Amino acid sequence: MTNRTYTIIGTGAVGGFYGAKLQQAGHQVRFLLRSDYQHVLHKGLIIESVDGDIILPQVEAYNDVQKIPPSDVIIIALKATQNHLLTTLLPPLITANNTVLLLQNGINIEPTIAPLLKHNTLIGGLCFLCANKVGPGHIRHIDYSAIAIGEYTQDYASVGITEKMQAIQADFAPAGIDIQLNEDLLLARWKKLVWNIPYNGLSVVLDARTDEIMANSDALLAVKKLMTEVQLGAKAWGRMIGDDFLEKRRDDTVKMNPYLTSMKLDFDGKRPLELEAIFANTLQMVKAKGIDLPMISLLYHQLKFLDERNRQIN
Amino acid sequence: MTNRTYTIIGTGAVGGFYGAKLQQAGHQVRFLLRSDYQHVLHKGLIIESVDGDIILPQVEAYNDVQKIPPSDVIIIALKATQNHLLTTLLPPLITANNTVLLLQNGINIEPTIAPLLKHNTLIGGLCFLCANKVGPGHIRHIDYSAIAIGEYTQDYASVGITEKMQAIQADFAPAGIDIQLNEDLLLARWKKLVWNIPYNGLSVVLDARTDEIMANSDALLAVKKLMTEVQLGAKAWGRMIGDDFLEKRRDDTVKMNPYLTSMKLDFDGKRPLELEAIFANTLQMVKAKGIDLPMISLLYHQLKFLDERNRQIN
Repeated sequence: MTNRTYTIIGTGAVGGFYGAKLQQAGHQVRFLLRSDYQHVLHKGLIIESVDGDIILPQVEAYNDVQKIPPSDVIIIALKATQNHLLTTLLPPLITANNTVLLLQNGINIEPTIAPLLKHNTLIGGLCFLCANKVGPGHIRHIDYSAIAIGEYTQDYASVGITEKMQAIQADFAPAGIDIQLNEDLLLARWKKLVWNIPYNGLSVVLDARTDEIMANSDALLAVKKLMTEVQLGAKAWGRMIGDDFLEKRRDDTVKMNPYLTSMKLDFDGKRPLELEAIFANTLQMVKAKGIDLPMISLLYHQLKFLDERNRQIN
Repeated sequence: MTNRTYTIIGTGAVGGFYGAKLQQAGHQVRFLLRSDYQHVLHKGLIIESVDGDIILPQVEAYNDVQKIPPSDVIIIALKATQNHLLTTLLPPLITANNTVLLLQNGINIEPTIAPLLKHNTLIGGLCFLCANKVGPGHIRHIDYSAIAIGEYTQDYASVGITEKMQAIQADFAPAGIDIQLNEDLLLARWKKLVWNIPYNGLSVVLDARTDEIMANSDALLAVKKLMTEVQLGAKAWGRMIGDDFLEKRRDDTVKMNPYLTSMKLDFDGKRPLELEAIFANTLQMVKAKGIDLPMISLLYHQLKFLDERNRQIN
């Protein structure tokens, strides 16, 4: 194993979990923090996990990107709602050779990140992870942990499996994290939307867990029809997703533990929702191909209304 | 003024309000009641109204249709969710000559009522009324009171202005109720849906008053797009509704007092929602013409889920 260095931008549930896993596996990991900086600097990280707890009394904590040494891989693990911060946070970390791994849901985010890089490789990643931050430096890992990755090139042209992707996979393997390599990042992003759009969206609008959604025939019909719109959107970009894939995602959801989606958890915590990355970008992409996705559009407007009211300071 | 007799099936906000108005104007009115029968029999009806209160210490109250004398006009003022009761309630009231006036929102309801009649005239009516039942025999009238009526014939063929419609108009005139005569009942029903589908639907899903909906740009966009789908549905049935009409309905809504829709009031009272009459029938009608209304369809599924959960007895 090559012992590569990692910098994690955003030490929430996603960044904290994967960073801790990498550190436990022997990699040197630098964590960028904001509100939890003092706590994590002095007390480290705790991951309560279904796969076994990880207690790291000491981690390399930073609250200033300028002080972070050059690392082989920069992981962006911010919520997509925080991406405006990257124009400040990312450039100081970029060297001639490092790789940037963007761990975010949604679609069409890479084109906004790419201009901040030099000639670095940008890899997009989609996390299949149920984990929440339950306190400063304290993350609870409930289920799953795999990441689907794919290398980004302009216009999402498919580039196949690259060495840089394999290097990431090799780094995560001793940490017990399954890295799934995708030849086509855009297809991987559309496939993730097949789940995220119906379940994240409906969980907030209907105030419902995944099991409640699957147990009600009308909510299930809404899921099916929304999935079909995502499938149509993917097709408009030349990415074919079969009906069997849609069905499999629903079957998997029935088998899951009753579960509040990450968007519902954000909503309940009065945090901003990732509506632009997941919904608005999807609608914009298909609009560029002359296609309308009316159900996703209605769901987006409903979510925007609810999100704005939810965070109103009165 | 001819002094005609009226029977009101369903003495809730709608039936109680219009029945009291007719009685005050000198008509003989018979009220069919269920849960409020004893109260209204002994204490009559009270209408607290913006147009002046109406106190009727004595009314003709019935709890059995078999005991109601033949009346010139039978007004059906049940919620559409109660229409299954009409197979029992309506036939005993039907004579050779009486007219049936159906005061309900939604569309395609008349075809289910018509088979219960002999050769009677069936007139459909759409109430523009803000009124709630606030207690037994006690109705609060907040705003508006007009009724748009049109005569029903098979397949909603337009029949123009008929004498029977004019007779109803003449009866309501001394009661101060504006009866708007429509040559085409189906067009009138589609026009009412232009308002009912977006505002009733979104008020429940978003838990919002009409003014909150109009003040938020995303909720307003949702309203506009839903109205456009209703417009498309009307067009599929050969009924043209102009963009100016849609805009006018939105402008009127901005000018209204902040207002919970009747569907939201039903939801908050844990009563069943009129989803079949307003949403399912609309979707079925356009489906018969090979048209999809995807936003209305998603909204319907969401409402069905919420309605079912709302009335679960746990």
